Amino acid sequence: MLYSKLFGKTSKSAPHDADSVNARFLAQGGFVDQVMAGVFTWLPLGLRVLRKVENIVREEMDALGAEEILMPALEPKENWEKSGRWQTVGILYKIKSRDGRELALGPTHEEIVTPLVGKFVKSYKDLPVALYQIQTKFRDEPRAKSGVLRGREFEMKDLYSFHADEADLEKYYPQVVKAYLKIFKRLGIKAEITSALGGSFSPTSDEFQLIAESGEDKLSYCANDKKYFNQELIGDKTVCPLCGGELKKEVRGIEIGNTFKLKYKFADAFNVQYTDKDGKRQKVVMGCYGIGVSRLVGAIVEASHDDRGIIWPKSVAPYLVHLVILGGRPSPTLTKAAPNSPPLGARTPSERGARGRGGVYKAAMKIYDDLTKSGVEVLCDDRDVSPGEKFGDADLIGAPLRLVVSEKTLAKKSVEWKERKSEAIKLVKISSLKKELAKYCKV
Amino acid sequence: MLYSKLFGKTSKSAPHDADSVNARFLAQGGFVDQVMAGVFTWLPLGLRVLRKVENIVREEMDALGAEEILMPALEPKENWEKSGRWQTVGILYKIKSRDGRELALGPTHEEIVTPLVGKFVKSYKDLPVALYQIQTKFRDEPRAKSGVLRGREFEMKDLYSFHADEADLEKYYPQVVKAYLKIFKRLGIKAEITSALGGSFSPTSDEFQLIAESGEDKLSYCANDKKYFNQELIGDKTVCPLCGGELKKEVRGIEIGNTFKLKYKFADAFNVQYTDKDGKRQKVVMGCYGIGVSRLVGAIVEASHDDRGIIWPKSVAPYLVHLVILGGRPSPTLTKAAPNSPPLGARTPSERGARGRGGVYKAAMKIYDDLTKSGVEVLCDDRDVSPGEKFGDADLIGAPLRLVVSEKTLAKKSVEWKERKSEAIKLVKISSLKKELAKYCKV
Repeated sequence: MLYSKLFGKTSKSAPHDADSVNARFLAQGGFVDQVMAGVFTWLPLGLRVLRKVENIVREEMDALGAEEILMPALEPKENWEKSGRWQTVGILYKIKSRDGRELALGPTHEEIVTPLVGKFVKSYKDLPVALYQIQTKFRDEPRAKSGVLRGREFEMKDLYSFHADEADLEKYYPQVVKAYLKIFKRLGIKAEITSALGGSFSPTSDEFQLIAESGEDKLSYCANDKKYFNQELIGDKTVCPLCGGELKKEVRGIEIGNTFKLKYKFADAFNVQYTDKDGKRQKVVMGCYGIGVSRLVGAIVEASHDDRGIIWPKSVAPYLVHLVILGGRPSPTLTKAAPNSPPLGARTPSERGARGRGGVYKAAMKIYDDLTKSGVEVLCDDRDVSPGEKFGDADLIGAPLRLVVSEKTLAKKSVEWKERKSEAIKLVKISSLKKELAKYCKV
Repeated sequence: MLYSKLFGKTSKSAPHDADSVNARFLAQGGFVDQVMAGVFTWLPLGLRVLRKVENIVREEMDALGAEEILMPALEPKENWEKSGRWQTVGILYKIKSRDGRELALGPTHEEIVTPLVGKFVKSYKDLPVALYQIQTKFRDEPRAKSGVLRGREFEMKDLYSFHADEADLEKYYPQVVKAYLKIFKRLGIKAEITSALGGSFSPTSDEFQLIAESGEDKLSYCANDKKYFNQELIGDKTVCPLCGGELKKEVRGIEIGNTFKLKYKFADAFNVQYTDKDGKRQKVVMGCYGIGVSRLVGAIVEASHDDRGIIWPKSVAPYLVHLVILGGRPSPTLTKAAPNSPPLGARTPSERGARGRGGVYKAAMKIYDDLTKSGVEVLCDDRDVSPGEKFGDADLIGAPLRLVVSEKTLAKKSVEWKERKSEAIKLVKISSLKKELAKYCKV
């Protein structure tokens, strides 16, 4: 992609209401545009990241054998009355349609998936079933904040599993936990499994917390058990409920996933039963498992940035390579390139001068075309702005690898290679660039 | 995919309220589940079709140079007041949040995309811009009907283009029309460009109509000009407004796309201007272009079915191949396979008998694994039900190609090959199956 054509450019100033690193850098980098508090448009750059996170989540759900469906955001009031949550869930957006019918705008989908499974599951042979979706959720959030971390409209993956008995749920549950840890690892972040409140249907749940100062959850940590507890669960306890050892307080976390053993809560409400081997009717046992997909984009930024901008992991970077063309304005730095000029027999300085701006641009575009055709994702800064602005934007946008093409590097038939997460700079021959990139991608 | 594992099986009876072919077959085939009138869950089979339609639309939008974004469903009331549509758009779902703020649940996105473009477009150098999204829309529809053709929650692709002047819009508009015709062709349906009403901002628009009895739009046709007119535009006229010739009445169509030259309507409302080459402020000129993505799934079914079920075009079929294993219950037909038994030197009848059920199953699973590994999308009916039920379900689900593996076909080292759209049956050697499939995919 040519940066000059990309819709949604960087901005020099942070939004006035940016209360967190992700809010600031995602807006300044041109990843999202805030429509109102907690509601965003994903711009081309941000949508690329979101889709990559989605796909990693999808791949691991598929690997788990779960099947993807897509449930509606509009949910009938009757279903929420059956589950008893129409009045109790405060963040539920309620809609009255023209014909007087009341609807919920789904913040979660137990009320849809449970009766759905009830329609299709008849016998023990139809179990277990695991269904997931990656879908837009809505919460009438009193305090939308922290960029895409706590929004009113956001994207979630929700997985629901249905089992013939509790033993089967117990067997399945750790498989989901394992898949979750794999997802977070692929996203380049470390998730801590944290004991938390379980709601009305289960005494506890597991949360996956990314330890970060900007997190809104307060966690206690037992160094003995290497275990985190959400303080909502254990209150002001100072000793570990497991070993009695001292609890370290006030670690903060961003909840990026959670898993619940719902058991009979919704199966009872929607009377979902199956016929067992002996012809007897049995209740279906249920689990649910969430991952905040759009929240993860923000969480990754919180976990991986410096004061200049974002440092995307390769797996979800909008582009792998940020190619900077320094062909626009030959700067004094470039004129000083004499010590690096070609050996005798190569072009004379005046020939190099003639290559000048257009020459560097042409050579860079050839590299861009070549890499793009090979399937490398390249954002090419082809604008006619200063090197400083280009480098600043590259750091802000945060592609893992910055390549610079200038008269100086071309004189050595090379490009300048710099990883976003390091200060080291090296020259790489253009002829071996694809090989080097392939090696880099494997690391 | 093994059919035994697939969530969402076929149903022998049509839903009692199925008022159209797509409503009936998409429900009976296990593609969608109706949650309430006009609101559906997309089951695994249906979601595969929806994603394929999406991707064809996406590819053609990308080829047009449009950039993908994702706007929110929650839209601020103020934006709809600015455009003057808060009171006038009857199908607008309105939400009041807990803090008293009013929101619209987006049926369309001019109110979001126009101010967004206003933020980023400053100069003539930033134009033209073309942005699209594939997103969930909501309509408080008084008469949700015809399956996924007219829903309350549905998926649309909307494209918005922004130009420096009307001439640039006029140049761009036919490119979109061309892309639309290409999309519909890839989807295997014929769209007729139809002159229609344009709303308050433009005297006319173009609609893309699929001629079908189940369509809700009434069209008139001029055989002379080979041109369709939506009767909403021309009323009860009996002569063509272009040539004065006779208009044929009462052709019905399903509107699968539309294109509008919005011009200044929203640019004025949101005061979107740019600085031209001479430093003067100018109004941005706008176009918008919709395609009903989920509606297209229904439209394809309306256009391509017989009385037994759906006939999917290869481009969007949930699976290319429906592989039927006739290994469960050796039927009298199979016993009569003697004339086709292997030549001398091959297995004796008793050996073949020993291969029996498990043998056919094993051989079929080998074919299934082999094709799947080669990237062929196969739905394999591995259930222990009658051949009649399997054939009936294959016809209902409508994969383009049915392959049958039975003791009889295996005796000839072959599978039975039947295209859904034809009655012709042939045997294809297992050893040349992949080659034949590659050939079939290219047609």
